[in-house]
Amino acid sequence: MSTVTSIRTLDIRFPTSIFLDGSDAMNPDPDYSAAYLQIGTDSDDGLTGTGFVFTIGRGNDIEANAIEVLASRFVGRDVEELLADMGATWREMMDDSQLRWLGPEKGVMHMAIGAVINAFWDLRAKRAGQPLWQHLASLSPEELVDLIDLRYLSDALTRDEALDILRRGRDGSEERAAELLADGYPAYTTGPGWLGYSDEKLERLAREAVADGFTQIKLKVGADLEDDKRRLAIARRTVGPDIRIATDANQRWDIDQAVEWMQQLAEFDLAWIEEPTSPDDVLGHAEIARRLAPMPVATGEHVQNRVIFKQMLQAKSLAVLQMDACRVGGVNENISILLLAAKFGVPVCPHAGGVGLCETVQHLSYFDYVCVSGSQDGRMIEFADHLHEHFVTPASVVGGRYRVPTAPGAGSEMRAASIEEWVFPGGHGWTKING
Amino acid sequence: MSTVTSIRTLDIRFPTSIFLDGSDAMNPDPDYSAAYLQIGTDSDDGLTGTGFVFTIGRGNDIEANAIEVLASRFVGRDVEELLADMGATWREMMDDSQLRWLGPEKGVMHMAIGAVINAFWDLRAKRAGQPLWQHLASLSPEELVDLIDLRYLSDALTRDEALDILRRGRDGSEERAAELLADGYPAYTTGPGWLGYSDEKLERLAREAVADGFTQIKLKVGADLEDDKRRLAIARRTVGPDIRIATDANQRWDIDQAVEWMQQLAEFDLAWIEEPTSPDDVLGHAEIARRLAPMPVATGEHVQNRVIFKQMLQAKSLAVLQMDACRVGGVNENISILLLAAKFGVPVCPHAGGVGLCETVQHLSYFDYVCVSGSQDGRMIEFADHLHEHFVTPASVVGGRYRVPTAPGAGSEMRAASIEEWVFPGGHGWTKING
Repeated sequence: MSTVTSIRTLDIRFPTSIFLDGSDAMNPDPDYSAAYLQIGTDSDDGLTGTGFVFTIGRGNDIEANAIEVLASRFVGRDVEELLADMGATWREMMDDSQLRWLGPEKGVMHMAIGAVINAFWDLRAKRAGQPLWQHLASLSPEELVDLIDLRYLSDALTRDEALDILRRGRDGSEERAAELLADGYPAYTTGPGWLGYSDEKLERLAREAVADGFTQIKLKVGADLEDDKRRLAIARRTVGPDIRIATDANQRWDIDQAVEWMQQLAEFDLAWIEEPTSPDDVLGHAEIARRLAPMPVATGEHVQNRVIFKQMLQAKSLAVLQMDACRVGGVNENISILLLAAKFGVPVCPHAGGVGLCETVQHLSYFDYVCVSGSQDGRMIEFADHLHEHFVTPASVVGGRYRVPTAPGAGSEMRAASIEEWVFPGGHGWTKING
Repeated sequence: MSTVTSIRTLDIRFPTSIFLDGSDAMNPDPDYSAAYLQIGTDSDDGLTGTGFVFTIGRGNDIEANAIEVLASRFVGRDVEELLADMGATWREMMDDSQLRWLGPEKGVMHMAIGAVINAFWDLRAKRAGQPLWQHLASLSPEELVDLIDLRYLSDALTRDEALDILRRGRDGSEERAAELLADGYPAYTTGPGWLGYSDEKLERLAREAVADGFTQIKLKVGADLEDDKRRLAIARRTVGPDIRIATDANQRWDIDQAVEWMQQLAEFDLAWIEEPTSPDDVLGHAEIARRLAPMPVATGEHVQNRVIFKQMLQAKSLAVLQMDACRVGGVNENISILLLAAKFGVPVCPHAGGVGLCETVQHLSYFDYVCVSGSQDGRMIEFADHLHEHFVTPASVVGGRYRVPTAPGAGSEMRAASIEEWVFPGGHGWTKING
């Protein structure tokens, strides 16, 4: 038996704003950051559980503080007990009525809960000697349903329906796992499409994306309509008619504006329009989807929890569900979101990029393929080719497909040298820039 | 001219869990708390701007930290400039794209923005020598609309519609202000109805409430159906047929459960059912409202922002809108919520109680009466008679009506002795309790 002996939170920021990687209509100058947690134990195995919340700079300290306050309750606790019932460990945080007031189930506090439970998942998968996706796939339908919280979902998904989906998902699951390891999983790239890039850079990166084997690219839109038309024309001309081009407005518009703007871009045969308006606007997304049909609407990276996703599925607000590894309450809540998506027959194409999102969210897509939806149709994981070098097990995309990881853990562990360099504000990377 | 010279945040908690004041089906043991902000300047006037976020205990430190990080940007800034354009001061925080990632517009970060802008409002009203409600009423329709953010609202409320509402609101506004000062504003009391109270205490407090002049009381429900029936029978028998009895489930139920439970309580002729399910569930509230009609559904104390309120009004999810002084992004966002409610013809009955909520939210109801809805029909402010003694200008209810304050400021300033006693964990009130 072992005990949690340390909780260490770190404010880690990368100076991405200098190169305008990640710039879009709402986020002109992000510094991709991680409010990062390490859970240490007194076990001889020397393993650390790691989890994080992705942010884009200022406020990363606020998130790190929330994680620190929340996680400190686990110091001195029995590790085997915490890991044996991950549903109970998660609910201990979710159902703390005093902490719940700070959301409920949204924003800084909810993301902190996600980081903490994800760190325990990382530790548990490492102890099991399995990558997280395979570790989740090894659980029975009953064990999986016991991980989630069906409160507020019963009008859309009952416990029995969740069990049915997971039981059906067992058919052929071993074959799908083997196929994943052999062939990987589809990726799409946002690399060419950041607003801060010149037309020349857009064209070069779009050409390279196709050469690299990607079948979908994504462009940011919403700052200037004429710019969008010009950039989409360049992109479509460069990639040809058979490569899918998605667009992403990052919540820039009101409803009429979204519809009118996108009607003018429809000629470019778009794969989807992502985040056309507020991520809280279930009814607004539904109206946009109706009026822009058949152009699909995608959203999810800022959707706060399973209750909003439930409504978006009920109201047909989205045709592509973009789950995020760090936005909701961790692996547990994301399992319930995968089940909701399966129930409504909507494909999940996770949001990734940022820092560490590709590394972590991929596990959820593989679990979805092996155990839940059993399908890759219309499914792919976002990929942005930056900051992977800071992770112990970096995400890898070859020929437009993710290589499926086999290393134990959840993919969230950062390299010690990277932490040392980019811890904010004292890391030597930052002192060099600022000094 | 003067400069912001200090930002001081304090974690202040009151040991309310010891007496079970404030206990309900979701919150069995709250310690009412305030993450409290003082903004100091170098002006000779010696005035301090105060604002806070109400929480119920653990996590108050997380909220205080968020306020500290956020507010620190204003140290060294020109006070007159910040106060002259409160729309710009607010938007500087709301539109900080890096901080926005932590919500957007919800939870810990959004409430922190509310506390900071409310502290500036307190300072501005004090400098003007006016209570906040009167200070807001002194602004022109154009000045008021410039305070708010209509983004994501245009499908429900345009700038022209907002201006029209405010221009119509000027008719008779001086008479209504005079009437407020003479006669006060309706209150209702939650005092008798906490779940932790014995039947005897419920009966005694209900009898006292009627004797004190209240025309509505509220009971917490949702923990046990038979208990609810017994308690409502006691309450109805005690207050007679003419006093309104509202009920509050504090998010306890899923949709079917809410409908089935409340159908069994309908015989007690209820004024409303409050928070039957998740505050995020616009569609769920709408379905509950349809199936329970004509029993009104009320919600709002946990509604995160104007975008959710907009949808709840569009979908007819609520018949009573319960704004909260601390949940959303402060006075500015609450003005937009009052305008939405006026547009849809829904009465606003603010959530209060807790600590400092009565003191602060009353200003918004008076502003609503004087300048927006122009009506008291179906409108009243919640009142819970505790913790008022900690405020410099405590809320006062006489004969079932709020006495309207005339002291300058927003009502948020706490007494120095109270702060000293209950600052957590070092205040002498806490050191005495904890041994």
